[in-house]
Amino acid sequence: MKLCSFEVEGKESYGIVDGDRVIDLLPLSSYYNAALPLRVLDGIAKGEEFLQQISSLLQRAKSEGELSGHTLSIEEINWLPPMPEVKRNIICVGKNYREHAIEMGSSDDIPEHIMIFTKATNTVAGHGHTVPLHEDVTSQLDYEGELAVVIGKRGIKISPDDAMDHVFGYTIVNDITARDLQKKHGQFFIGKSLDFSCPIGPYIVTKSEVADPHQLTITTSVNGEVRQSSSTGLMIFRIPDIISTLSQGMTLEPGDIIATGTPAGVGKGFTPPRYLKAGDRIDIEVEGLGNLTNQLQ
Amino acid sequence: MKLCSFEVEGKESYGIVDGDRVIDLLPLSSYYNAALPLRVLDGIAKGEEFLQQISSLLQRAKSEGELSGHTLSIEEINWLPPMPEVKRNIICVGKNYREHAIEMGSSDDIPEHIMIFTKATNTVAGHGHTVPLHEDVTSQLDYEGELAVVIGKRGIKISPDDAMDHVFGYTIVNDITARDLQKKHGQFFIGKSLDFSCPIGPYIVTKSEVADPHQLTITTSVNGEVRQSSSTGLMIFRIPDIISTLSQGMTLEPGDIIATGTPAGVGKGFTPPRYLKAGDRIDIEVEGLGNLTNQLQ
Repeated sequence: MKLCSFEVEGKESYGIVDGDRVIDLLPLSSYYNAALPLRVLDGIAKGEEFLQQISSLLQRAKSEGELSGHTLSIEEINWLPPMPEVKRNIICVGKNYREHAIEMGSSDDIPEHIMIFTKATNTVAGHGHTVPLHEDVTSQLDYEGELAVVIGKRGIKISPDDAMDHVFGYTIVNDITARDLQKKHGQFFIGKSLDFSCPIGPYIVTKSEVADPHQLTITTSVNGEVRQSSSTGLMIFRIPDIISTLSQGMTLEPGDIIATGTPAGVGKGFTPPRYLKAGDRIDIEVEGLGNLTNQLQ
Repeated sequence: MKLCSFEVEGKESYGIVDGDRVIDLLPLSSYYNAALPLRVLDGIAKGEEFLQQISSLLQRAKSEGELSGHTLSIEEINWLPPMPEVKRNIICVGKNYREHAIEMGSSDDIPEHIMIFTKATNTVAGHGHTVPLHEDVTSQLDYEGELAVVIGKRGIKISPDDAMDHVFGYTIVNDITARDLQKKHGQFFIGKSLDFSCPIGPYIVTKSEVADPHQLTITTSVNGEVRQSSSTGLMIFRIPDIISTLSQGMTLEPGDIIATGTPAGVGKGFTPPRYLKAGDRIDIEVEGLGNLTNQLQ
């Protein structure tokens, strides 16, 4: 299931992407008095029950011929982040691909232990949204295409073996970074938390549709030129380890988003560096998860 | 005004501390149909209007003899963090006192630029709450007494001159840190985000009652022995600079909590280090802001 949030005719809703159509779930839920949660975040917190609720609703609508009346063209919607209201800062893994760690410094910079930082909630943006260049605070804005995990079940001290039970699904994150601020302020937070510097989406693909999250191609292009091209199989710390390490002392919550790090090929890695400019279009494609597109302004 | 949140007889409420009494605002608001917001966080977002609403309510109750019927003894309440539901991660300034930067490393570690990291929302705890030792994940748990600023007004690109207009008030934070995890994981987030490792309180003192937030004594004691004793005047980066730097590219929101860094005297600074043990009681006193007490378990 591909779960997305969107705005259409000034109204916020969420739905299921099906090819170039979107089934608009909130009006369908009202029509059948199905009492779907009003926000994706609340649905995710209900876990499997939420997905079953959606499935039953779709089945009924289909059998009663009500589906097409509640379906929009993908062209009609204004995409929102899959969870428009995030609960807390986005959790990010730093330097989680060997070649990226090297391009950011040297082979001495390959982390022995997971490195975690956060992006503030004001960074969240949707697929298709314009991202500001923030030229007055940075001259080194850079892209980072990443596979992100959405947590579906609360937990602490989760073992690597149990970790995948806590995953709701997957999405794409662009961890846009001001390299000058990242360096200047030591800890990454300031350089990672510029407004709208975390496009997320276009949708969340539920776990059951991703056979192996460590066998997905991941490609980032700028203005059509491929810059990052890798496989999620090359992560240094894999998803079960990330979830387990994070949760040893910290309770993970439904709706938590964990961006799993970026492969080599960021702008800073080129000689000379190739930072983002006004008008640049970034496309991040992760196999099975769609294409997250944003333009700089 | 000293604004606190608490639980009494299983019900959550908030109120005004007056000596050893607390005026319980939510029942008083119901009594007079005054429609106070149900959560301190929502009140803070209303700014000055919220404080005026409270003042009018107190005045009316006083003149009509209804105050004592809505007043509790401070002994009766179970303190909650002043904003029980924080909106997003706690924002923290690292190494913001010269002598602390030196005790954590050397004089080479005095930051030239503000260093910011976050503590996840699961860290929040109230005055009097027990803090777990997390012995299975750390053997180096440490205290950090800090003055914290509560943001009252949304803003971006706030100038240092305007910064204080965005402050709602002040409180105390204990930025409890697992030193081993802080070091091991490079970025501070994991070592700073153990469950309940951010006691906050006991209350928020509104801005008008603090003449100069950079002239407050700050003292941290462990089991009655003074460990940190300093003045908020010794901050390297002062509150207007912190707010201004943070907000250059990032929108600050009402309810944001910024912990302004800790003075010298943390456990790690001793030879040998004096980390926290089960049963230890930490008291942090900031002049005019009360005493934040927590015990380790």
